[in-house]
Amino acid sequence: MQSEGLKIILSGPSGSGKGTIVKELIKEDFRLSISATTRKPRIGEENEVHYFFKTVEEFEEMIEKDELLEYANFCNNYYGTPKSFIDKSVEEGKDVILEIEVQGAMQVKSVYPDAIFVFIMPPNFEELKSRLIGRATETDDVIEVRLKRAEDELQMYREYDYIVINDRLEDAVDHIKQIVQAEKLKSYRYKSYIENMLKK
Amino acid sequence: MQSEGLKIILSGPSGSGKGTIVKELIKEDFRLSISATTRKPRIGEENEVHYFFKTVEEFEEMIEKDELLEYANFCNNYYGTPKSFIDKSVEEGKDVILEIEVQGAMQVKSVYPDAIFVFIMPPNFEELKSRLIGRATETDDVIEVRLKRAEDELQMYREYDYIVINDRLEDAVDHIKQIVQAEKLKSYRYKSYIENMLKK
Repeated sequence: MQSEGLKIILSGPSGSGKGTIVKELIKEDFRLSISATTRKPRIGEENEVHYFFKTVEEFEEMIEKDELLEYANFCNNYYGTPKSFIDKSVEEGKDVILEIEVQGAMQVKSVYPDAIFVFIMPPNFEELKSRLIGRATETDDVIEVRLKRAEDELQMYREYDYIVINDRLEDAVDHIKQIVQAEKLKSYRYKSYIENMLKK
Repeated sequence: MQSEGLKIILSGPSGSGKGTIVKELIKEDFRLSISATTRKPRIGEENEVHYFFKTVEEFEEMIEKDELLEYANFCNNYYGTPKSFIDKSVEEGKDVILEIEVQGAMQVKSVYPDAIFVFIMPPNFEELKSRLIGRATETDDVIEVRLKRAEDELQMYREYDYIVINDRLEDAVDHIKQIVQAEKLKSYRYKSYIENMLKK
């Protein structure tokens, strides 16, 4: 049965290893949502691969036309998620991954109620702490703030459909693939298939 | 995370190949629900393996005490599904398969709202027909009645959580395993795990 791809929203606290999981998934048959931005391309960055590079006028037109799933202004540059790329990809049958932080993910729910929400968790709080410290680029205060934030974010797990504990990377990636496979077997996706079968 | 096993309800029209799938699953780590009956054991049948063999008095006591998930009287013998075996198995962390026809499955929903309902489908209607004819033990009339019944049963797919199309046996078995894996990652199953983590 050829059918629409899935939209998979991945969230997880800083230190959950979400980014590494995404890198593994796009090596396989998943497509990563591409953001739009008004910042200048850095060396090696290609338009329509790493970002959709836009002028401020183009970006503001996208905002006006409601073409963005969500957007924000950061250091005087716009960043946003164009809906058209996601919609086109799922129509082609591709499964699209959106890496979005918790607050943003809740907004996506109203636009894409059929998306699958997956929360990536560190195996335990000590591990999260040591991963944050391991980066060694932050002061103790910053780590404390991040830990508190991670704790708050963990409380949001109820809003997600699935939990994937990132203990071993390989297992975490397998779990996401199993979730996607199972979601494709959900009965509501078989409506037209079964109706056609019965029509004969 | 050690957790409760799942209750998996498998239904599907006659000729969907449901029985063969069940045989494959119990070769692996799944446990099949054992029925209770008042009929006499046949040669080779063991108590508590093939059936729970009961006297009429014992069986009627089980009915009175509401110990059966469902039961029926067929050719003057009682047949039923004891809840205790299922409950004990899932507590031990075993995933239990219940092979139940469509009408019975709908009754199970009210007793086990957390069960997973999987509908096994033939790949197409012609295949279903040829599988029914292939058995060559029935008259044309009986086959027609069965096909009509299968058609009615297929309409019930909406009541199930998942659809598994039994085109290749191996794929169908894999799909059921993926469903079970994914269901174990559902966020509501992580309530105590996450609460413990946050308590530290």
